[in-house]
This record gives sequence, structure tokens and C-alpha cells, in this order.
Amino acid sequence: MKIVMSVEYCGSGFHGWQRQRQVPTLQGCIEQALSSVAAHPVEVHCAGRTDAGVHALHQVIHFETTARRALHSWVLGGNAALPHSISLLWAREMADDFHARFAATGRTYRYVILNRRIRPGLKHGQVAWEAKHLDLERMYASSRCFLGEHDFSSYRAAACQAKSPVREIRRFDIRREGALIVLEIEANAFLYHMVRNMAGVLMAIGRGSEDIEWAEQVLDARDRTAGGVTAPAAGLYLVDVEYPEHFQLPKAAGASALFSL
Amino acid sequence: MKIVMSVEYCGSGFHGWQRQRQVPTLQGCIEQALSSVAAHPVEVHCAGRTDAGVHALHQVIHFETTARRALHSWVLGGNAALPHSISLLWAREMADDFHARFAATGRTYRYVILNRRIRPGLKHGQVAWEAKHLDLERMYASSRCFLGEHDFSSYRAAACQAKSPVREIRRFDIRREGALIVLEIEANAFLYHMVRNMAGVLMAIGRGSEDIEWAEQVLDARDRTAGGVTAPAAGLYLVDVEYPEHFQLPKAAGASALFSL
Repeated sequence: MKIVMSVEYCGSGFHGWQRQRQVPTLQGCIEQALSSVAAHPVEVHCAGRTDAGVHALHQVIHFETTARRALHSWVLGGNAALPHSISLLWAREMADDFHARFAATGRTYRYVILNRRIRPGLKHGQVAWEAKHLDLERMYASSRCFLGEHDFSSYRAAACQAKSPVREIRRFDIRREGALIVLEIEANAFLYHMVRNMAGVLMAIGRGSEDIEWAEQVLDARDRTAGGVTAPAAGLYLVDVEYPEHFQLPKAAGASALFSL
Repeated sequence: MKIVMSVEYCGSGFHGWQRQRQVPTLQGCIEQALSSVAAHPVEVHCAGRTDAGVHALHQVIHFETTARRALHSWVLGGNAALPHSISLLWAREMADDFHARFAATGRTYRYVILNRRIRPGLKHGQVAWEAKHLDLERMYASSRCFLGEHDFSSYRAAACQAKSPVREIRRFDIRREGALIVLEIEANAFLYHMVRNMAGVLMAIGRGSEDIEWAEQVLDARDRTAGGVTAPAAGLYLVDVEYPEHFQLPKAAGASALFSL
């Protein structure tokens, strides 16, 4: 039987998604918790393998099991065995052709920057920080070049293993909420470090270190060495994953949620 | 010379405000950091002595010093010596008649409840959690009895040392933001555990365990044993402190800030 679940987590304190010996990872913790519910070893696949320090409001996972459990037992039993900073939100039984990663047709990431002179205190580890004033208009104008289908070679990490550097960005919003600047980006899929590399370039443009045209010049270069710094992991959230209609997955409840400081 | 500063902190991981031997406290960390900037021992007074696990967006502190430092040196030097979850936001020189606690004419606290079936993951330690649906209309209606000047004996902890149990509540807002319910309460001052005790009573009313009139019945009893449970510390934030106009303190920047999950 194939089970699909949604997971929320704070990535601080984990060495990223992927299972590793000796260090705590999200996959490691979740597999251990679900294996204890299943009473057999469970291997978990996810929609987007987040890096160390990256968070998720709605990470989608699936696994195969021979165990017969009520759906809420996967949620409650799993949560009882998980650290406090990881929560399983729901579980569904799914057809065999579903795959959390390969069936996904879209992903949405949010990148949150605290833009004030003083470093974060309350939100340490949950936002990126930029002390210099960021000009939202400049960032928005330069981000327009990202929309549509492009070769994002300049925005992928050297270690990226994707076969093609072509991705389609469907939405790229930028808004200010108090002292925070929030980027929200929807694409068919993302390359390794792609959001953080775009955020790094836009932050340089926002604070006036680079021209508005720079984001597009970097894009056109199709060369990672033409790009800017990778913005910190702490600001990054996986907020939604899209699947074809017929799978009838629940919507990401948190994706539009506001959190009042 | 008297210096006043604003501090933001995440209270998780601290044993409350008040200095204690052996365990990390906010006062202890802040005094140690500012003493290193002053190069002499500094004793810090605050507007509201928050409990273990309680947060602040804008805690106001003052201290006496013989050290001559540029104002930004108190901020930058202090932050360099503080843990990541505490941030000094600004510093001002202040007249001798100022006192962070005794000069304050008003305080605003926020109480944040995650109202969904599943426990918090991302926001663990930063929100209270209620799994049963809370009826906002009921909570709002019953909270009206708190407005104005009352004897809050039923809502103060047994350990409260205040001479008078009378406090004046000037504003009591309740709003829903996605899965969060946010109470925001402004008063001249608060008794020990007063916000958490009011939140505990309103949550019982919101989930239907108690009648709408119960909050007022508890209030009228003037007896702590008539009250309900104390809601958890994790949901509580000190967000603003008011002083007489002539001190000309900067406004709490974060008090109205929204944080997008």
C-alpha cells in the first residue's frame, strides 16, 4: 500500500533532508518514526529534498507499507515518535502511480528576509538578514526576467545533479510585511540552490550594489561563476507542492497563513 | 548616566527574565553582555519580567553606567556578546527620573494560539496549541467583561507579589490569522500570569467546555481557585511598553509587524 503524508518542519538543527549516519536529518527522523508505527522498516520519498537549515510548511512524502493502519494512526503515532520541530499533518492512501517527487507538477518556495539594521533575535534561524535597506521596486523589476522558461545554469549550484538546467517559473511575487521582505516563487521544479541564488542576486540589486539589469545578465551568461552569493538557508521555506488534479491531495493549509510576530 | 534600550528575544531556552545562578536567564545574559561593553558590572531593570518560555518583541530595559560609549556601541557591542536569540534593537540616553518598570504607563501583550488538530512543528515553542476548534465569537463576547478597571484576583497566580489586584484593561482584541488565533491585550500593568490565566479561561469558553458568562463569573469571584488553567508560556509575547510622551522613546517597530510563515 502507498501512503502519502504532508510534513511541516523547522529545519534548524537538522542536517537537511537526506538520511546520513551519525547526524540528525529529516528523512532519518521521519523514517524512524514511521517505521515504529509500521513495525517494519519504511523508506520515505519527498517532493523536495531541502538543505540543512531549510524549513517546510508542506513537504509531501510517500512510502510503501504492508502494515494496515488507520490513516490517523500514521499521523498520531508518527508525531508521538518525532522531535517537536517536525509535525506530520495528514495521511492519505494513494494509487500506485503516485510518487511524491516524480508526480509533482509544481513547487512553491518562500524566501523571507528580515530587512533592518539589527540582526534577528526572536526569529533567529527562521529568516535571512539584510542590514542595508532593500529597495523593493528594484528587486521586483529585476525579478521579471526570471518568469517563464529559461536555462538557469547561472543559478544552480555546482553540485546540482539535474540533467537539464531548464526550469519554468510561473510566479515570482515580492512583498514587504513590516520589516520583512517575502519572495514567493512557483515553478515546475527548482535546481539545487536555485531559490537561494536568485535571492542572493536580488538582494545585491535591492541594496544597490548591482544594477537592475544584473539578474538578467547573470541569467543570460548561463554560467554559475557569473552569479552572486547564495543567500542563507534560514530564510527558505517549502510552502506548497502541486500534483495532477486526479490525485485529489488536500491543499497546503499553511501556504497562505500569516504569522503575527 | 542612564541608558535605555529595547530588546527582542525568543524566550525558549531561558529560565525567564530574572537572574539566577547556574541557569541561563535573559537578565543574566544581557547584564553580562552590557557589562563587557561598559567594562564594569551593569545591573539591568526591565519593564516586564517575563516568565520562562515567554518572548518579547520590545522589552524595555535601563541601566546606570559610568562608561562613555557611543549609543550604537551599546547595541553592536552588546549584540556581539549575546546569544543569537536575544537582540538589542536601540539605545537612548535618558533623564534620571526614567525607570523601565516604574515609569511605564502601559504594556501590551500578545497571546498566540495555533488552533488545528496537529501540534505545531515549525512554530514549536513559539505558539500555544489547541486541537479542538475555538469559537472566536464566543471568546470575543466573553472577553468584554475584562475591559476597564477590575479586581483581577481570580486571574493572578498565587505567587503574585503585587500590592493591589486592581488593573485597567484598555484594549482586548481577538483575531484569527489562518490557523492562528491572536489575543492582544493592553493594560496599565499586568499581574503575575494574568494574560495566561485569561487566555486559559477564554480557550475553555472557545472550545465550548464553559459558558460565555464564565469569564465574568470567575472575575467576580475574586478568588484564584475559581479560575481555569494557566495557558502555556510559549504563546506569550511582550509587544509594547508605553511611557509618558516627554521621554520621547522610539515606538515598538515590531508591534504591528506580520510574519508570513
